[in-house]
Amino acid sequence: MARVVVDVMPKRAILDPQGRAVAGALERLGFGGISDVRQGKRFELEVDGELTEERLAELRRAAETLLANTVIEDFTVRVEHVTTQA
Amino acid sequence: MARVVVDVMPKRAILDPQGRAVAGALERLGFGGISDVRQGKRFELEVDGELTEERLAELRRAAETLLANTVIEDFTVRVEHVTTQA
Repeated sequence: MARVVVDVMPKRAILDPQGRAVAGALERLGFGGISDVRQGKRFELEVDGELTEERLAELRRAAETLLANTVIEDFTVRVEHVTTQA
Repeated sequence: MARVVVDVMPKRAILDPQGRAVAGALERLGFGGISDVRQGKRFELEVDGELTEERLAELRRAAETLLANTVIEDFTVRVEHVTTQA
């Protein structure tokens, strides 16, 4: 069993209106000194069985196919922790 | 200058319909062996100046105030990287 995290963020070159809105709101609430905010999605996948390289490659394909719109978003896949069967 | 990441996830006890929908879609697309999916938000904050403990405490307050709905969401704040002025 493992927890794999997929982070999906807007590509740097793409305008991020959500991030801009959050940055403006932080400023208005008095949280200064934050020059930029980008907002994306975080997925936590609980993966059964052993986490082999093939499994990770499959999860990357799943992220590419469903979790990210690769035209406007970048994604990263990383293993957060692995629980070994007792 | 530093990049601080705020991850906001639904509390474990809270039903996560988005996560359920993603899990179902992954299954239908043939990506099996994923027992649970949780979907949350990821914020990347570009913070000016030096990242002191006070600054980090302020960013936690910002996350608590604006970025997370602490009734139904948990959040974590971590420093991704620090760029020291040359």
